[in-house]
Amino acid sequence: MPRDESFKVIDVDVHNEQSDAALVPYLPEPWRSRVASGGVGFAGSGYHSPVGVLRRDSVPPGGGKAGSDPDFMIEQLVNGYNVEYAILTGVVYNISATHDPDFAAAICSAYNDFLIEEWLGKSKAFKGAIAVATQDPALAAREIDRIGGHPDMVEVIISSAARAPLGQRQYHPIYEAAERNGLPVALHPGAEGAGSSTPPTAAGYPSRYIEWHTCLSQMFMAHLVSMVCEGVFEKFPKLKVVLVEGGIAWLPHIMWRLDKNYKALRSQVPWLKKPPSQYIREHCYVSTQPIEEPDNPQHLIDLFNMIDAENMILYSSDYPHWDFDAPTAILKRLSPEAKRKVFYENAKKLYRL
Amino acid sequence: MPRDESFKVIDVDVHNEQSDAALVPYLPEPWRSRVASGGVGFAGSGYHSPVGVLRRDSVPPGGGKAGSDPDFMIEQLVNGYNVEYAILTGVVYNISATHDPDFAAAICSAYNDFLIEEWLGKSKAFKGAIAVATQDPALAAREIDRIGGHPDMVEVIISSAARAPLGQRQYHPIYEAAERNGLPVALHPGAEGAGSSTPPTAAGYPSRYIEWHTCLSQMFMAHLVSMVCEGVFEKFPKLKVVLVEGGIAWLPHIMWRLDKNYKALRSQVPWLKKPPSQYIREHCYVSTQPIEEPDNPQHLIDLFNMIDAENMILYSSDYPHWDFDAPTAILKRLSPEAKRKVFYENAKKLYRL
Repeated sequence: MPRDESFKVIDVDVHNEQSDAALVPYLPEPWRSRVASGGVGFAGSGYHSPVGVLRRDSVPPGGGKAGSDPDFMIEQLVNGYNVEYAILTGVVYNISATHDPDFAAAICSAYNDFLIEEWLGKSKAFKGAIAVATQDPALAAREIDRIGGHPDMVEVIISSAARAPLGQRQYHPIYEAAERNGLPVALHPGAEGAGSSTPPTAAGYPSRYIEWHTCLSQMFMAHLVSMVCEGVFEKFPKLKVVLVEGGIAWLPHIMWRLDKNYKALRSQVPWLKKPPSQYIREHCYVSTQPIEEPDNPQHLIDLFNMIDAENMILYSSDYPHWDFDAPTAILKRLSPEAKRKVFYENAKKLYRL
Repeated sequence: MPRDESFKVIDVDVHNEQSDAALVPYLPEPWRSRVASGGVGFAGSGYHSPVGVLRRDSVPPGGGKAGSDPDFMIEQLVNGYNVEYAILTGVVYNISATHDPDFAAAICSAYNDFLIEEWLGKSKAFKGAIAVATQDPALAAREIDRIGGHPDMVEVIISSAARAPLGQRQYHPIYEAAERNGLPVALHPGAEGAGSSTPPTAAGYPSRYIEWHTCLSQMFMAHLVSMVCEGVFEKFPKLKVVLVEGGIAWLPHIMWRLDKNYKALRSQVPWLKKPPSQYIREHCYVSTQPIEEPDNPQHLIDLFNMIDAENMILYSSDYPHWDFDAPTAILKRLSPEAKRKVFYENAKKLYRL
């Protein structure tokens, strides 16, 4: 089948990788010696994927981790799928699950400098997400202010694995800084249940990766409900939040249930001025991968239509992870107009590309 | 409007109440003295509902807690709404959040004896749920065997607030005993975040009741994924599970996401012989209250149709709690056939009434 060259996409979740050693030159002491001798040492959740976490065919020809070679990423992803912009999300946000707030902040700063230096100039398709750690929101805000003005940094990214629901007040300095710098805040899973983060599901620690992965959406539901109810979007009216890799089909449930509860319980959230679902619609985006796959694909489109979701959805591939969704493989039944929004226009507008 | 006398309902979640003192005669020592002097002392989650948790108009004319007078319940609920059967769920399942497994088991036994003695004979509409505590599944199994043969006891009820995902092996003696006695197992929320249970959301402890209540569904998603993936329904092929008061509209998300993950990760759950959603469809029921309420009520029906949910849904009022759903007030757009199933036939078949 000939490729449709007019079908350009913006991919909002592309995981560039690097060796721990690559960050060493960007770290100050005492962290430089620590990483040089013992690596970054991400806290691990202990859940094992039997299919690995990376695409085996994405290892660069010259070796190294999948996703660690900008040139091979350009060839395999950017040129391979007509990606006009790829938002480089990295994996460093996972550092929020470790215990030491200063170390976590230092790793993020080193990574952000590394990203600017080693990646963003390699292709005009590459745009960066500023990684910040949530253990110390004041340090995170300082990092956003330090890097936020870089023309190729288009969002802030934090881990959805956290110590508390992310709408709570201790996290507001992050949102204040993001709003001040005109940057959306993305939440990304991966460290759920690791280190000092909460257990990965509401019911605690499941036994295996299939359960852990299926239940990741709960983290996003909990954070979203918290953000809306804590009044984050009233306090920071220009803030946009991107829920990356957390699923989509749960949105009707949450919007309907929260709106219903709001009718009876609004006295608890007097700072809200409109139904909760309206804040979600106006301030939040969800990324596609891993897209839910009903036996009848039309059902997913019908479900989107129930909540008028076409303005909230952003295409993401999750390259080079095992469950990569090619833009040509998903959401084939969207209308041409909705498709243009989801695969391109929504992200172009959100990230001002 | 004249009442439609042909519209009989079975209500699968009716909360009978009692004073702590009412359980004292049914308790052995040392628990009898403890409750007589200090009450049952349920572990509290600390979340406060500004509208209370009980309907103010359900306090019996003679006083006492709402739901504590069988005669008034017959008048207000059973006769008031043409309820042919009311499954009395109580509130004692919440004892699973306390720390002492022997105390929790003793309270459940006392309550079950009290229920048989003081309630079940008062109306042929009353059917009972055997409360068991999950701290010590062997004790729970013994209680199910002790009471399971009573002709008016039609299910086992446990708290959805637990120390771990309820599919895990330590809980299997409960399911084994329920299957042996031909009884479905109901899960009910209420103690989420209290005592020794897990935090109430995947992201930890939210700030207020509106968030806590909205997020309760996450507990059900996590337990359901755990039960399916741990192979509970292969091990206990006759077991039925009723998810009471956990919402419904999240089912498509969970079924689609879990089925998709199963395609890639089935090596982790080799004991499963069919797609996860099929176990859910064949073994699980969800109760209606609190039903999600989209602005366009047709959307909920359309969503049910996507997963062929009409055989899985059971009507529940949650009487006498604040968010009571009258059978005449909800799901008006269901087809007459689906309505008959949801409000009557599904429960009649499940509970062999």
